[in-house]
Amino acid sequence: MNEKEALRTSDEYREALKKMQPSIIKHQLLQNPYEDEDIQKGMNVVALSYDLARDEKYRDMMTVTSPFTGKVINRFNHISLTREDMRKKQQMIHTLAKEVFCAQRCVGGDALHTLFVGTYKVDKSNNFATDYHERFKKYLKYIQENDISPCGAVTDGKGDRSLAPSEQHEKDSYLHIVRETEEGIYVSGIKIPITMSLYSEEIIVIPGLQYNKDNADCAVAFAVPADTEGVEIYVLGPEIKSLKGKMSPTHGKKYLNKEGMIVFNNVFVPKERVFLCGEFRFAATFANIFANLHRFAYTACKPAVYENMTGAAMLISEYNGTKGEYFLSNNSEKVFEIYKTAITVRGLCKAAIEDAQETESGAMMPDPIFANMGKYISSENFHKAISTLQDMAGGLPPNLPYETLLENKDLRDRMEKLLTRKKGVSIEDQYALNELIRVMVASNEGGLLQFGSKHGGGNKEAEKVAIYGNSLRAMNDCKNCIQRMSQEYK
Amino acid sequence: MNEKEALRTSDEYREALKKMQPSIIKHQLLQNPYEDEDIQKGMNVVALSYDLARDEKYRDMMTVTSPFTGKVINRFNHISLTREDMRKKQQMIHTLAKEVFCAQRCVGGDALHTLFVGTYKVDKSNNFATDYHERFKKYLKYIQENDISPCGAVTDGKGDRSLAPSEQHEKDSYLHIVRETEEGIYVSGIKIPITMSLYSEEIIVIPGLQYNKDNADCAVAFAVPADTEGVEIYVLGPEIKSLKGKMSPTHGKKYLNKEGMIVFNNVFVPKERVFLCGEFRFAATFANIFANLHRFAYTACKPAVYENMTGAAMLISEYNGTKGEYFLSNNSEKVFEIYKTAITVRGLCKAAIEDAQETESGAMMPDPIFANMGKYISSENFHKAISTLQDMAGGLPPNLPYETLLENKDLRDRMEKLLTRKKGVSIEDQYALNELIRVMVASNEGGLLQFGSKHGGGNKEAEKVAIYGNSLRAMNDCKNCIQRMSQEYK
Amino acid sequence: MNEKEALRTSDEYREALKKMQPSIIKHQLLQNPYEDEDIQKGMNVVALSYDLARDEKYRDMMTVTSPFTGKVINRFNHISLTREDMRKKQQMIHTLAKEVFCAQRCVGGDALHTLFVGTYKVDKSNNFATDYHERFKKYLKYIQENDISPCGAVTDGKGDRSLAPSEQHEKDSYLHIVRETEEGIYVSGIKIPITMSLYSEEIIVIPGLQYNKDNADCAVAFAVPADTEGVEIYVLGPEIKSLKGKMSPTHGKKYLNKEGMIVFNNVFVPKERVFLCGEFRFAATFANIFANLHRFAYTACKPAVYENMTGAAMLISEYNGTKGEYFLSNNSEKVFEIYKTAITVRGLCKAAIEDAQETESGAMMPDPIFANMGKYISSENFHKAISTLQDMAGGLPPNLPYETLLENKDLRDRMEKLLTRKKGVSIEDQYALNELIRVMVASNEGGLLQFGSKHGGGNKEAEKVAIYGNSLRAMNDCKNCIQRMSQEYK
Amino acid sequence: MNEKEALRTSDEYREALKKMQPSIIKHQLLQNPYEDEDIQKGMNVVALSYDLARDEKYRDMMTVTSPFTGKVINRFNHISLTREDMRKKQQMIHTLAKEVFCAQRCVGGDALHTLFVGTYKVDKSNNFATDYHERFKKYLKYIQENDISPCGAVTDGKGDRSLAPSEQHEKDSYLHIVRETEEGIYVSGIKIPITMSLYSEEIIVIPGLQYNKDNADCAVAFAVPADTEGVEIYVLGPEIKSLKGKMSPTHGKKYLNKEGMIVFNNVFVPKERVFLCGEFRFAATFANIFANLHRFAYTACKPAVYENMTGAAMLISEYNGTKGEYFLSNNSEKVFEIYKTAITVRGLCKAAIEDAQETESGAMMPDPIFANMGKYISSENFHKAISTLQDMAGGLPPNLPYETLLENKDLRDRMEKLLTRKKGVSIEDQYALNELIRVMVASNEGGLLQFGSKHGGGNKEAEKVAIYGNSLRAMNDCKNCIQRMSQEYK
Repeated sequence: MNEKEALRTSDEYREALKKMQPSIIKHQLLQNPYEDEDIQKGMNVVALSYDLARDEKYRDMMTVTSPFTGKVINRFNHISLTREDMRKKQQMIHTLAKEVFCAQRCVGGDALHTLFVGTYKVDKSNNFATDYHERFKKYLKYIQENDISPCGAVTDGKGDRSLAPSEQHEKDSYLHIVRETEEGIYVSGIKIPITMSLYSEEIIVIPGLQYNKDNADCAVAFAVPADTEGVEIYVLGPEIKSLKGKMSPTHGKKYLNKEGMIVFNNVFVPKERVFLCGEFRFAATFANIFANLHRFAYTACKPAVYENMTGAAMLISEYNGTKGEYFLSNNSEKVFEIYKTAITVRGLCKAAIEDAQETESGAMMPDPIFANMGKYISSENFHKAISTLQDMAGGLPPNLPYETLLENKDLRDRMEKLLTRKKGVSIEDQYALNELIRVMVASNEGGLLQFGSKHGGGNKEAEKVAIYGNSLRAMNDCKNCIQRMSQEYK
Repeated sequence: MNEKEALRTSDEYREALKKMQPSIIKHQLLQNPYEDEDIQKGMNVVALSYDLARDEKYRDMMTVTSPFTGKVINRFNHISLTREDMRKKQQMIHTLAKEVFCAQRCVGGDALHTLFVGTYKVDKSNNFATDYHERFKKYLKYIQENDISPCGAVTDGKGDRSLAPSEQHEKDSYLHIVRETEEGIYVSGIKIPITMSLYSEEIIVIPGLQYNKDNADCAVAFAVPADTEGVEIYVLGPEIKSLKGKMSPTHGKKYLNKEGMIVFNNVFVPKERVFLCGEFRFAATFANIFANLHRFAYTACKPAVYENMTGAAMLISEYNGTKGEYFLSNNSEKVFEIYKTAITVRGLCKAAIEDAQETESGAMMPDPIFANMGKYISSENFHKAISTLQDMAGGLPPNLPYETLLENKDLRDRMEKLLTRKKGVSIEDQYALNELIRVMVASNEGGLLQFGSKHGGGNKEAEKVAIYGNSLRAMNDCKNCIQRMSQEYK
Repeated sequence: MNEKEALRTSDEYREALKKMQPSIIKHQLLQNPYEDEDIQKGMNVVALSYDLARDEKYRDMMTVTSPFTGKVINRFNHISLTREDMRKKQQMIHTLAKEVFCAQRCVGGDALHTLFVGTYKVDKSNNFATDYHERFKKYLKYIQENDISPCGAVTDGKGDRSLAPSEQHEKDSYLHIVRETEEGIYVSGIKIPITMSLYSEEIIVIPGLQYNKDNADCAVAFAVPADTEGVEIYVLGPEIKSLKGKMSPTHGKKYLNKEGMIVFNNVFVPKERVFLCGEFRFAATFANIFANLHRFAYTACKPAVYENMTGAAMLISEYNGTKGEYFLSNNSEKVFEIYKTAITVRGLCKAAIEDAQETESGAMMPDPIFANMGKYISSENFHKAISTLQDMAGGLPPNLPYETLLENKDLRDRMEKLLTRKKGVSIEDQYALNELIRVMVASNEGGLLQFGSKHGGGNKEAEKVAIYGNSLRAMNDCKNCIQRMSQEYK
Repeated sequence: MNEKEALRTSDEYREALKKMQPSIIKHQLLQNPYEDEDIQKGMNVVALSYDLARDEKYRDMMTVTSPFTGKVINRFNHISLTREDMRKKQQMIHTLAKEVFCAQRCVGGDALHTLFVGTYKVDKSNNFATDYHERFKKYLKYIQENDISPCGAVTDGKGDRSLAPSEQHEKDSYLHIVRETEEGIYVSGIKIPITMSLYSEEIIVIPGLQYNKDNADCAVAFAVPADTEGVEIYVLGPEIKSLKGKMSPTHGKKYLNKEGMIVFNNVFVPKERVFLCGEFRFAATFANIFANLHRFAYTACKPAVYENMTGAAMLISEYNGTKGEYFLSNNSEKVFEIYKTAITVRGLCKAAIEDAQETESGAMMPDPIFANMGKYISSENFHKAISTLQDMAGGLPPNLPYETLLENKDLRDRMEKLLTRKKGVSIEDQYALNELIRVMVASNEGGLLQFGSKHGGGNKEAEKVAIYGNSLRAMNDCKNCIQRMSQEYK
């Protein structure tokens, strides 16, 4: 890093992690967590965001001069202050998602943005008797100066969904303040599933729901280093043991979204790192700001996933010789059905930028209706797109023989019998594409993507409620307009 | 009209029409066409666009200073030169569509815009050996100076869809040049269905399709007054004899979209009003520019129709006492399903503005992908919305007794038995709302709206082709990206 | 009618009506209701069911020997006692629906069947202390002997849907017993919309909902002649004044489903015609039996409507020259989308027959799950089918010029310009098909069909509840099965 | 096996396999293929069909007396001769599919049925100059007598889909006759993916497509033991290394559908085992009979899979406390959306039985339209059901921590924080259900099910073509009916 830039190399990111002593648990506590193969796949995703920031080709898109530090920083740690900032962020997220399906850093970045906007609101409502915003800006500078990629921990365990936090059989289902001292607070509870929690230096915590007075202890926001005493991080998801073949796709073999559960066991947080502390009325504010920002991020990201499915559908049709018209079907129309959602969600992202509002803190907020609708439509059409791609791909993806046979001189001719299709496409290319499609849409890894499309950044119900909530006045206007029209007889 | 403004009153519009002598045919030639009840309903729609332009409340949205005449003109006759122009146009179309479901003037305005952009392209490709653009600008000034609302005639009769114009059994299925002289051209053929043709002073004709050399005579654009010799205009659509009740809705009773068929019988067009004349390579250019503009207009307009359906669904639920939750159903979710499309299409309209491009002529072009997708989604979801509204409305709309019974002292108590629902809603209001819903979604008038949603401004196939055509490179990039990813094993 | 047959001619049906003196109200009391044009269109539909029964070609399907009278009767008045009976009923309803879209007689027939099954259940639960079943059988014989086509009045006005009958502002929203005497009962209230009520000799009333003790006065079933004192029948729906052209389609011009509202003003019903009288626990029984039977009738009928839409889509494509493949589309696939529902609903009808159960009364009951699902799917896909047909038909149906112009020598060549398409199809045929399509799917008449598809025989919510109710045990078995599977680790 | 029964125990099935010497290849030739863990999971599925046949509780459903051997046999090897046979087969397939998702034996059974019907047709068309039917009956008796569960090999490799077999770059893409001698035929080529091929004693081969004269060598049907010289069977699909936990679900851990590719390298088939030999006109006959039978089997089987998803959705909602109503959503309605397809497909299965036809061979054929439509609908809705289940399940299934932690005394309390939800549900039960759902709908195993839903027994295009082909006359009748109606003006 030079004086004008705060941009670490990806190796510096990796080295920084290795100097930490977090409690990361798989079957048991990992002694060298960052040597773990699955965790390394996640680190590779984060590393890419460091590499591209230092790549001249992507510099304009990936970096920005911080108004707080005066240095060039990674855009993921920047608080968007203009529409142009938002446009570049859309482009950045889209570019990364094309490569790795999920850039992962959005959560942490959106948590920073949330705290910037939210702390200002709290302080203002307190007539600036509190100084959360100043505390947070100091923390933000620390993050930017050191080019740290924090994770954002929003969703609680939530226990029995029909009960409030205070009614739970298991109090730690929700993260909450255990006690408060002069120096800071002690917190307990769980956050899950937390993207990047397994390979972040910093954990930023914000409330995931609204809370009433009885649950004011859950209205808490703060940040801690990942190796803080009492913090345990559990590796989640099915154990990935395969995807080690020569032709296994990069997604899954090199890159992976490996989620973690963070358990807080009476963890101490010093005052200067506490950004909300029992002001229960603001829990919803923080949760909604985050939701809005994160759904906007989805509208930037998901078109890339749909585009990858589009490309896969086109390429497999070409390889298989099914590009043309069928009796009673039309391959181009099927591709269109997948690609259509890429366009629509991208358009709603642009609309969310066009109608974005500046907040009192100075940071921009994307239009909540378009941001939520973009995420909603992306979520709604995802399985249909998968269905179409599986339909177009034919039956081979889940029915490939063992890859090593392609290198077996005695059996290679058998593989040619199976895999020879379009003239000029090698059987290796045919194999690799089929395996890529399987991993994308019919595998443990693909299953994670599917659940992510449903529940990442809140499920469809949450989005509908957000749209409804923000549209209530406009919808009532619609009703009144019809009432007037229907009473013109008077 | 004062010196600085070229804004007629709606009465001036009506008077100007009455001074014309067009051949308008219903069962037979109408002697006083503008006294015809159905045609007057159409005129009322156009008149509204004159009235609002002179209304202080809407002035900013409805008018603009023409860069060509220097006077304040109606925005429908303006060529959008900036994004801000486009935003106001969106707002204007939306505002009118809320009242009248279809503002009707978009077609003529889009035809003007098309000729502005298209003639420049032709001239430029001819190294300005032609002067179509200058001719057209003169015509445009004439329209603006006199605050005329022209209609745009784009779609030909088209005869047997499996045959090209030159192969048709009936040559006049397509409008074409019959002969050319020093003074101008003679044209024959039909254009149908043409919005506003029954009550416009001017008819602007542009090609509706691409044509090859063999059909170069169909590549023609021009403008003629509606009462030019040889021009006949036929009233289309089912005869509307009902909707005369006191409680009949304004839509249908006062306002109507009454389409016409224009037959050209060897009509002479003087040179200065000819804007394309056999340059067949540009027929597609003109057709595509118009399609793009008109689909953009749809994305501005259709959200209003969805909003009206939303309002109707909300109000009838309130009147009927079905606002709450059902077992196995949720009324709010149904309303959301209707309103969702209003949001999505509105968002795509904004995206089309955000990504709009300036053409060489100086006029703006909305992004074709978002404009087409907005229209496509509007079209795709329309019948589902109707279905939902019918579902929510209950069985009464098509099953109302005769309205006069409400005023029959002896029988009014029977009407109360039927129509009394929510306390405080008069039986007249209940009746009128049910009838409004019937007219909107289950009537001759509503049927016209439905067909309009399918075929107005081109059908779904046309939109898909436009999206595909404009996305081809991006889609191939998707394919190449996947090919690269699938070959990373190499 | 001979000794072995009780089959009236359609003229006998018409004459019988004319001998009655019902109070039928349009704008006012009709002096000669059966001369009314709209009512006659409904009578034509009923007449067809008489004509076919006497037609050798349809005799086997349309008639059956009554086990109660020993005579050959119209199948609509027969209580199905075997699966074979049900199969023929399916065939009969389907055959009539192809011609007239809705045979109309199903409602009355299903009401008879309901009372046959339901009265037996009541009597049995009373240990045969009541004799409703015997009363009803006498009435049934009267109907069969005289070949009467009764209407069935099920749905009440219902007032404010959020209130129970006893809570209504307007007590007469629900039909109810006003008082009971030795000789019979007095009833008041409304039933709406009642199919065939405008042209039936007999009105059969059954409860449309479940009622608790507080609303026991609504638990009432009976039959009265249509001209009973105090009975008023109101003509419903938009006034049909058009559809009088030479080429207007039979559906609308000759045949129409004209619904009525029946108002009971303290009407006396003699004991022997009362079939349920306050036994509120059985109101739901009657309502459910009727619902089940009537949804079964829908599964027999609606495939015909889908088949008509299929045929229209095929024929208009042929006429227009759009049969082949489009770029990005496939016409055959679109036709398939319409026809698919015809097959599915027909299949579910057959499944309802296959799993039908014999009741204790001896009458058959179709399987409720399949019958309801058939109706549900028919209802769910109806607007999509309309949308597809409108899409395929092109823009002409709602945009036809006045039909009389085809006979105008001077203008016929203009009509040829417009209507000439496929070689060999006359412009009259082209015109008539387009108008038929308009009437089917985009008109006042088509709107009635659409609302019928939603609310006829109960709306989608009612069907879902019926399916859920009948599937509850099976669904719990599903849950238990998964619970067992998920606990196999134990 | 006693004299009257030919019912092996599952151990006898396993022992019989172990006596064979097939060439089964994974990374390399397996020395003891039946010791392979993945293959054993497939054998367990087949074993279940043996066990249930000997279980008194299932005997009536699982077995039948063969008309050919006079002994009680497993119904999978029986040729259905009556509707009652078909009903029991539906029940049998459904029962097994509830346990194992795919019973696997249908393919082999349907191949037997196909050959029974098809060989009779060939012989008859040859005026019984050929004796394929007798040959096949001998083979059938051998299978029945020895209670063998053969696999059916239908689908060829197919190479470049745009080329016919004779045009392929790789001739062995399609299985074909290499040469014919007095004693029999020699065949080469591949069949893939072949269910049960890895653990069947016998392989039955039938053509998968229609072939013209140029490809007559592909029109071949025969049977060989799995260890015939020249036959190689390749293990397909992703390597399953996980699913070994205590709480891993039975599906995946104990049971698996492990497909194989069969390569025929100049394999000799003796005459008496050849059932079609170059009679190319009958290739389509065999393929269509099989398709019809197998799609019928799907309509029996897939409702079980939808029922399992229904049960999972209900149980996880109960565990999570999300059973009730949401704002803007309704959990019961979501469950209904999944279960609806179970009902519809089951109904279409019953309709296919109701309309089944007896063939000249004496065997029954399900109605092809309903059988295909059932499969089509099952396929069309599968991903929507998965989407709904994932939506309802919440985010936990793909984000579970390592199962061993539940048994770790020190960390069990952390697991309680995470997994405690509904009171009374142990954290083990919560864990196991979430893992079951993940495996069902978001895993390598679930991906196989998804592809199976698309391509198993032919893809959607194949089903549409079959429906269209069998409906052509009926659809033309629809068109003619509308033509007649539209010409009633004449």
